[in-house]
Amino acid sequence: MSERNFDPEIRRVAHLIADAARAAILPYFRSRALGTDNKLATGFDPVTEADRAGERAMREILARERPDDGVLGEEYGIKDGTSGLTWVLDPIDGTRGFISGTPTWGVLIAVADEKGPFYGIIDQPYIGERFEGAPDGAVMQGPHARAALATVAPRDLAEAIAFTTFPEVGDAAEREGFHAVAARVRLTRYGMDCYAYAMLAAGQIDLVIEAGLAPYDIQAPIAVIEAAGGIVTDWQGRPAHQGGRAIAAANERVHGQALEILRNY
Amino acid sequence: MSERNFDPEIRRVAHLIADAARAAILPYFRSRALGTDNKLATGFDPVTEADRAGERAMREILARERPDDGVLGEEYGIKDGTSGLTWVLDPIDGTRGFISGTPTWGVLIAVADEKGPFYGIIDQPYIGERFEGAPDGAVMQGPHARAALATVAPRDLAEAIAFTTFPEVGDAAEREGFHAVAARVRLTRYGMDCYAYAMLAAGQIDLVIEAGLAPYDIQAPIAVIEAAGGIVTDWQGRPAHQGGRAIAAANERVHGQALEILRNY
Repeated sequence: MSERNFDPEIRRVAHLIADAARAAILPYFRSRALGTDNKLATGFDPVTEADRAGERAMREILARERPDDGVLGEEYGIKDGTSGLTWVLDPIDGTRGFISGTPTWGVLIAVADEKGPFYGIIDQPYIGERFEGAPDGAVMQGPHARAALATVAPRDLAEAIAFTTFPEVGDAAEREGFHAVAARVRLTRYGMDCYAYAMLAAGQIDLVIEAGLAPYDIQAPIAVIEAAGGIVTDWQGRPAHQGGRAIAAANERVHGQALEILRNY
Repeated sequence: MSERNFDPEIRRVAHLIADAARAAILPYFRSRALGTDNKLATGFDPVTEADRAGERAMREILARERPDDGVLGEEYGIKDGTSGLTWVLDPIDGTRGFISGTPTWGVLIAVADEKGPFYGIIDQPYIGERFEGAPDGAVMQGPHARAALATVAPRDLAEAIAFTTFPEVGDAAEREGFHAVAARVRLTRYGMDCYAYAMLAAGQIDLVIEAGLAPYDIQAPIAVIEAAGGIVTDWQGRPAHQGGRAIAAANERVHGQALEILRNY
């Protein structure tokens, strides 16, 4: 889909469902009733409840506002559409952050056509931050300001800041690949969940390296980061929107330098 | 200092300097002009103009409002006092998070007497969250609500959530000690800087394990966590306010179980 025929209705509905997910999920965040160890005793898993409530809220709006579009969601699977467009939803990306109380989780919303995602939102409800990427630009609305998103200017891998969810994700070979890159960068940081992709789009960091992703984990980050000037591929340089291993980079230079290492894993 | 003679002036001035630090530091956060330089010739220890501006703002107010108290700050060292009280300041704890754009850094303010810190603030200016511990209680003011702080109820190490700044800090033996505990808990997470201590005080997590700390890194967390019902010691169970290795725990049970392991390192 080219910039020329980007439908503003997509933006309107995307913000509508992002607002609905915020309202549905936020009451569960840092709730004392959220004791995940109650899961075994009662069969009730409040993180999953928040996840489901968020996705239901989004699907209800999509059913009304975009009945011809498909939906792919983490919790409720696939609903086929006839328009050629699919809404790809992850109501809570970063459940480990969510249960730990850290505002590093996010609501991920992407809209994809047959070529992949072309519109995306990464929303952090607790902070009140929304990162949006679209064919007509990338922007963030935070608690203090609204600002255009643009990735950081090219610098060498040795100067780069890299984020990852390793060592929590990935198999042994993937961890080895990640560490081979991490050994070459200036700074590696951990535990940021989808917030790391937002920081890449915002020009704060150079790389995010992940593995074991589902399509709904990566499609919104792809749309936001590409709209901000960055690149997202798998570890062989191919499209990453089906999930698996992903490298998100601020620009061609650091992408190429990291990929040279990751290709071997 | 007992609860009975806690001076409300300390609270008033602490919030005053926390507000001043917010105003001084926030304009630098996520600024493209962010100047970082290397404090040490070896290793990565960025210090920013923001750090210095934040501490200057706090010291100016203390000179006016609390002229008889001592000051110990990360950037400008020690100013002796005559009152027996010392303000312990870290304008930006978590500089690695700060330069990466993540709201995991914080302004740390503690007030200590000869026995150690008895009042503390962990402030996150970007989110607009302030965690306070005092002899008369612990409370947080966030973007959505004000709430009392209380650590999580006792549960075994196998059910615990642990946070740490490892692998970024510590020597080889310390990392080994940390990993010996991490291997026993339900979930280990990384990269949260001082925000991890706030999550412990807020009842979200059970443990924070760190090493290589300075006194100004740990005194505010000690005051906030102890006021919320938690325990902070070194890895031998002794007072931790001089820095070094620290374990912060939600309660006696998990503290004891983790300490049994850490004592061997």
